[in-house]
Amino acid sequence: MSEPIWKKSDSVVDQRLMRFLAGEDVVLDRELFVFDIEASQVHARGLARIGILTPADAEEIAQSLAQLREDFLSGRFVLEPPAEDAHSAIENWLTDRHGDLGRRIHTGRSRNDQVLVAMRLYLRDRLNRLARQVHALAAQCLRRASGDVALPMPGYTHLQRAVVSSTAMWWAGWSETFADSAALALRTRDWVNANPLGTAAGYGVNLALDRDYTTVALKFDRMQISPIAAQLSRGKYEWQALAALVQALNDVRRLSWDISLFTSAEFGFVRLPAEFTTGSSLMPNKRNPDVVELLRAAPAVALGAMNELSALTSLPSGYHRDQQAGKAPLLRAFAHGLDSLGICESLLDAVDWNETAMRAAIEPGLYATDVAIELARSGVPFREAYGRAADPATWEGSRTAEGSLSARVSAGGAANPCLDGLRVRLASLASAF
Amino acid sequence: MSEPIWKKSDSVVDQRLMRFLAGEDVVLDRELFVFDIEASQVHARGLARIGILTPADAEEIAQSLAQLREDFLSGRFVLEPPAEDAHSAIENWLTDRHGDLGRRIHTGRSRNDQVLVAMRLYLRDRLNRLARQVHALAAQCLRRASGDVALPMPGYTHLQRAVVSSTAMWWAGWSETFADSAALALRTRDWVNANPLGTAAGYGVNLALDRDYTTVALKFDRMQISPIAAQLSRGKYEWQALAALVQALNDVRRLSWDISLFTSAEFGFVRLPAEFTTGSSLMPNKRNPDVVELLRAAPAVALGAMNELSALTSLPSGYHRDQQAGKAPLLRAFAHGLDSLGICESLLDAVDWNETAMRAAIEPGLYATDVAIELARSGVPFREAYGRAADPATWEGSRTAEGSLSARVSAGGAANPCLDGLRVRLASLASAF
Amino acid sequence: MSEPIWKKSDSVVDQRLMRFLAGEDVVLDRELFVFDIEASQVHARGLARIGILTPADAEEIAQSLAQLREDFLSGRFVLEPPAEDAHSAIENWLTDRHGDLGRRIHTGRSRNDQVLVAMRLYLRDRLNRLARQVHALAAQCLRRASGDVALPMPGYTHLQRAVVSSTAMWWAGWSETFADSAALALRTRDWVNANPLGTAAGYGVNLALDRDYTTVALKFDRMQISPIAAQLSRGKYEWQALAALVQALNDVRRLSWDISLFTSAEFGFVRLPAEFTTGSSLMPNKRNPDVVELLRAAPAVALGAMNELSALTSLPSGYHRDQQAGKAPLLRAFAHGLDSLGICESLLDAVDWNETAMRAAIEPGLYATDVAIELARSGVPFREAYGRAADPATWEGSRTAEGSLSARVSAGGAANPCLDGLRVRLASLASAF
Amino acid sequence: MSEPIWKKSDSVVDQRLMRFLAGEDVVLDRELFVFDIEASQVHARGLARIGILTPADAEEIAQSLAQLREDFLSGRFVLEPPAEDAHSAIENWLTDRHGDLGRRIHTGRSRNDQVLVAMRLYLRDRLNRLARQVHALAAQCLRRASGDVALPMPGYTHLQRAVVSSTAMWWAGWSETFADSAALALRTRDWVNANPLGTAAGYGVNLALDRDYTTVALKFDRMQISPIAAQLSRGKYEWQALAALVQALNDVRRLSWDISLFTSAEFGFVRLPAEFTTGSSLMPNKRNPDVVELLRAAPAVALGAMNELSALTSLPSGYHRDQQAGKAPLLRAFAHGLDSLGICESLLDAVDWNETAMRAAIEPGLYATDVAIELARSGVPFREAYGRAADPATWEGSRTAEGSLSARVSAGGAANPCLDGLRVRLASLASAF
Repeated sequence: MSEPIWKKSDSVVDQRLMRFLAGEDVVLDRELFVFDIEASQVHARGLARIGILTPADAEEIAQSLAQLREDFLSGRFVLEPPAEDAHSAIENWLTDRHGDLGRRIHTGRSRNDQVLVAMRLYLRDRLNRLARQVHALAAQCLRRASGDVALPMPGYTHLQRAVVSSTAMWWAGWSETFADSAALALRTRDWVNANPLGTAAGYGVNLALDRDYTTVALKFDRMQISPIAAQLSRGKYEWQALAALVQALNDVRRLSWDISLFTSAEFGFVRLPAEFTTGSSLMPNKRNPDVVELLRAAPAVALGAMNELSALTSLPSGYHRDQQAGKAPLLRAFAHGLDSLGICESLLDAVDWNETAMRAAIEPGLYATDVAIELARSGVPFREAYGRAADPATWEGSRTAEGSLSARVSAGGAANPCLDGLRVRLASLASAF
Repeated sequence: MSEPIWKKSDSVVDQRLMRFLAGEDVVLDRELFVFDIEASQVHARGLARIGILTPADAEEIAQSLAQLREDFLSGRFVLEPPAEDAHSAIENWLTDRHGDLGRRIHTGRSRNDQVLVAMRLYLRDRLNRLARQVHALAAQCLRRASGDVALPMPGYTHLQRAVVSSTAMWWAGWSETFADSAALALRTRDWVNANPLGTAAGYGVNLALDRDYTTVALKFDRMQISPIAAQLSRGKYEWQALAALVQALNDVRRLSWDISLFTSAEFGFVRLPAEFTTGSSLMPNKRNPDVVELLRAAPAVALGAMNELSALTSLPSGYHRDQQAGKAPLLRAFAHGLDSLGICESLLDAVDWNETAMRAAIEPGLYATDVAIELARSGVPFREAYGRAADPATWEGSRTAEGSLSARVSAGGAANPCLDGLRVRLASLASAF
Repeated sequence: MSEPIWKKSDSVVDQRLMRFLAGEDVVLDRELFVFDIEASQVHARGLARIGILTPADAEEIAQSLAQLREDFLSGRFVLEPPAEDAHSAIENWLTDRHGDLGRRIHTGRSRNDQVLVAMRLYLRDRLNRLARQVHALAAQCLRRASGDVALPMPGYTHLQRAVVSSTAMWWAGWSETFADSAALALRTRDWVNANPLGTAAGYGVNLALDRDYTTVALKFDRMQISPIAAQLSRGKYEWQALAALVQALNDVRRLSWDISLFTSAEFGFVRLPAEFTTGSSLMPNKRNPDVVELLRAAPAVALGAMNELSALTSLPSGYHRDQQAGKAPLLRAFAHGLDSLGICESLLDAVDWNETAMRAAIEPGLYATDVAIELARSGVPFREAYGRAADPATWEGSRTAEGSLSARVSAGGAANPCLDGLRVRLASLASAF
Repeated sequence: MSEPIWKKSDSVVDQRLMRFLAGEDVVLDRELFVFDIEASQVHARGLARIGILTPADAEEIAQSLAQLREDFLSGRFVLEPPAEDAHSAIENWLTDRHGDLGRRIHTGRSRNDQVLVAMRLYLRDRLNRLARQVHALAAQCLRRASGDVALPMPGYTHLQRAVVSSTAMWWAGWSETFADSAALALRTRDWVNANPLGTAAGYGVNLALDRDYTTVALKFDRMQISPIAAQLSRGKYEWQALAALVQALNDVRRLSWDISLFTSAEFGFVRLPAEFTTGSSLMPNKRNPDVVELLRAAPAVALGAMNELSALTSLPSGYHRDQQAGKAPLLRAFAHGLDSLGICESLLDAVDWNETAMRAAIEPGLYATDVAIELARSGVPFREAYGRAADPATWEGSRTAEGSLSARVSAGGAANPCLDGLRVRLASLASAF
């Protein structure tokens, strides 16, 4: 571990303590590095706008950082110990190459706002990716809802067969659910898209930093005005980003539950290709839907991360080192969550319905509600109609699943699925990426 | 407990099980009752639009429900056992007064979408209240930031004195922080403002319900198209509403931490009026800031509620009774949270700064950062300036808190607080209530 | 609300703040009242042992409190506002009846240790009840495991049929699982069974209180020696008690999941009596296992409560009012949890297996593992045996479920269930109540 | 990634899915490897006891595994991809070296009980380490309580000065608190110390495995009899182990809060050596107690992990792949938690009290309680004494901190600290490691 920037001559650096302080920072920072570089370039140009650096110096720094970015992405530069973290690595890179010019980059900023702005750019990027990936799932489900032949299947409440449903209704349901989560990701992205750069250690500085410039240059929607508020947003914005992630993964969880049941021998509604299943080390007959089960587990990481962050928030205003402990769970949750959404897309592609099994599960009782409403439509008070329809003896013979579905004319029902409405919504969301 | 609507002739109703099933529903439903009434009126009018009820019948029902609402609000009608829940109470009220007409109200709807729509209207209302109350805190802090004389105080990081700050900066910080939370409440309100009415038990019905009408009549921004998606939004929207509540209460928590420290003898920055404190049963000398401490505890209820809801979400699609267990924590959290925000407003009104104590805490080291940046401004590379400023021997004498504050010209700093920016934002938020 | 004990002449009592401070304390305290009375009796007798009260005075107080207890339990004394809480009610009762003698009861103790000791007695009592109730479930399952005819059913992993299992194995599995949770409740009860009385406000007092006496008189296993540690145990012991409760309710959750699946039409393994199900408001054909689903939801309350308490623990040592916010979730969780365990017992009594459905689900593949192990037993390396057994063509014909079960001779398997081992364990646990 | 053991000829292995399925298993398994080896040795010897292996073959396997353990610990064998996990690595090692003999090792066991037993041994080991480390903290605090000169300091409630306390009381408080957590770790260790080996995939096998032998050989306190219960304990025992870890780390949190306040300029009670602090990148004057703050954050990881596991438990009985997602948070939490406890020990060694600052904080009001009790002792009813003592005018002059402490004679008070009681308890705990 190299000596930190703030190292004072009188301090004895205890290696074990240094390791505890550093944690896995430098490895985690690989996900933040390009964002720190971008913000540092803009900070340098901002310093030039107020005469702290010459324009030429600012460009020299910006170009040098562009090189660092390229070296990092190509693997020529590896962010690893003894670098303390991304922030030190950047300053050291500049100082090594540009001497005093490098020593000027930190003028008017603190590690605090440097960390904040890099994390903010990361959050914006990941929330946008989240929106895109969940939107892709919504679009995929919508294609299946409209493109596949609609097969009848039971609709369930309380895991009990309720009324006739269809595969098209099932796909449409997931499409709209994912659309909600995509919309949430975008709203959250916009809410966090605010510029903390220029707030220094949480109290501003005696420099007229051009924060309007950095706000525009970094494509933020607004400036975080109060430096104290900027510090207070730390952990707060991250937690909200995780909430958006949890929602998308909870969708995946419930969808996986459906598939898990549907692939059981008892339901038998869905067959999965072999690559989505694993065998048993003991039982030769097994073919287990492990991918489905790991997707059902997917929200756990993000939920755990939210609770991990929550446990760090009971603090007075101002920065505290406790807050840095929120970085690892945040990055872990987004990496795992976005990966899971990609796997979910593959899984949905692989869903292959077993029409025979689904039809066999459609029992006469599933028509009772249709009957009751028909009676009500013909003038029988619904409560009375409900009672009469409970006895299938009179109406059983003449009904089919297709008949039930074709009469389901309420908006969103099988005979009136309003898929155009979903299509319009998805297009509108896509325009906001 | 009266016999439930779905009671069948063959079922033996076990009283202990009935109590377990009912839980505290009927009491909780007092908070949902007016919303259920409103949605039932609109449902009746919607049935008239498709000829299931005559216009006159629909108006009779709507007027009767208006009476029920009035009786409920005035205390003439009390929602309590043996009514099973709000939904049964409404149907029973109508059937008692209007006979067969009352028995028609449930045509084309299920308890499932009735519960969903009442809860949705509740969520929208409470999120709007949340936005208003948090906005009021933001406005209150902004008034203090601009109206009070700014007193110098130390700014802290790591609970260590860092640089000179001021009471005006502190107030502005909380104003912007609360503004963020108000904005979040509004975004969340808009996200949940979608109409589930007309999705029945989660699969639609064989009636061409006029869902466009009910969407407009209930002032929803959009219709939830898919009945399956409507069911999947149960718990999901509630959880997100709680997240917005948690964020506001976490602001209150951190603010309370500040006040808790500031009212300690060691800091002594703030004096609270006697009514905000309590005594001890044993120690005659004590004067404890219990109100502050209970506000610091405020997010716990909502955080617990989120986790309670999370524990209910690992389910396949379709309605399950498990989900009803989410109602109690949700209502409890909003009641407690909104109450706490009101108390916070009173507390902030009562904050009385102790200038002497704050000035006494401003030690020379708080100017070191100013010095370093001045040196950097004059051309010394910042890393070198930082080293030189660490020794206060050369610059100590001539500095004052006021001098430091008046030089803090970065946007948001003491000399450039940009309060107009905050004012504009608050006005924009207020226009969205 | 009456004026609190610590009321000082100069304090203006704001009614709204008083309500916020009181919360629902006085109602919650109904569950703690008898414990506070018991501890107050012992405190009075302890004061007599060191000469602060005469023996006659102590007995007068103890008798008076015995009367209060009786009045409370019979409903003649109702704990409600304007009483502030249980503690004030006790002191007021004594002062009203015994004048100065009542004013002496609080000598040497603080509200802090009074609350601690009442809560401690409550925790011990509830953990013991928890152990008893979970033990009863374990015993019930064990009776079914040994008394019922064992019916073959599939054993599942990954919700896929794996090998032949039986109802007896299923009952035995739940018996041992509940036994684990009962053992945990007892271990937790013993861990918390320590006396905080006599630690005053967290720093002791200048009185040689006979804490050995109160420890024995209140049947504690040990004294909490350090007053600071006694305060630090607040919230800590409560949280651990909740963890024991969560574990038992998680057992109920997973058992309810089994029943939920088993009562689906697709599995059809279990029929429930009508009183365990409800109907639908819309669908005449429905019969829903709501009791099972609410039991599946049961751990949510306690899990939420743990998180609510966790959100209160980031505090320095010494008492803080924040901690009082832990009382409501704790009491709520135990009341709901113990109730749920009772309902679970009724549910298990009602489980009625459908042998036909279970037998129909036993497909040939369930014997493959038996075959592989038979081959291994005869000398074929297991990995090779596994491969050969995967093809059922050679061995299918001759196998039965009974044959598979009767060969399951590993300890705990169907042919060697070791129920005596479970019986001995349950007896050992029962002796510790 | 090598092909898994259960690979069937017809399955196409998709690399991306395989990576998703594997997760970080093979890396995580480094912490479980020695335990898996130990259990595999015992399983082999157990197979010899029932004639499945010859004694010579079992010894050959056991010796070979001993070599693998040695190679692993010395770094000659590295557990990494393409090995799928620890379990495959062991079987592959044996098969590579011993051919058919290696192919026999998995006879009668499943990956399920193999994972369970390795994890169980890990849990037992880590809970024991936890107990030892927390006990070491308790012993360290006890040494300071008895060995250091007791310095007077204020005792706080509500962060307000309450009565005179002392550094000795503070150390004793933490000693007993840590002792509680050590006791909890041991109780939890004993609760989980049960043998799942021999339960196969959760339903036993058709082999009379000698489970009594493996129970003794692996030093378990009891056998998990029911194979179904063994599977149900997965996640359950892990969660409880985390609860014990959380409790110890919550102690560290609250202790760190004390130190954080004590090292603020406003309190100034404690000075920390330079190596426990860091500087600021911007502010030359700063010296921040980062180590203290990261310790205050310490419980977050384990709390997050508990919630992560909780999110995985809503499942029917039987194994599901979801449960494997609990491994990473568990291992992460224990590694981080045990590390933090070690750092805490160093921190406590470094605590250096500032007597002057603490004495300056002892204001006359801190004696009011002493006065009230003295009056009560002399016959004044306590409620009246409390009122009189509130006015310090009459008694102020004559009191000292030492006088107050020397009169604190209640058990656990400064004048009667009962440290022998703590010493005996610590010795008793140590005997159970």
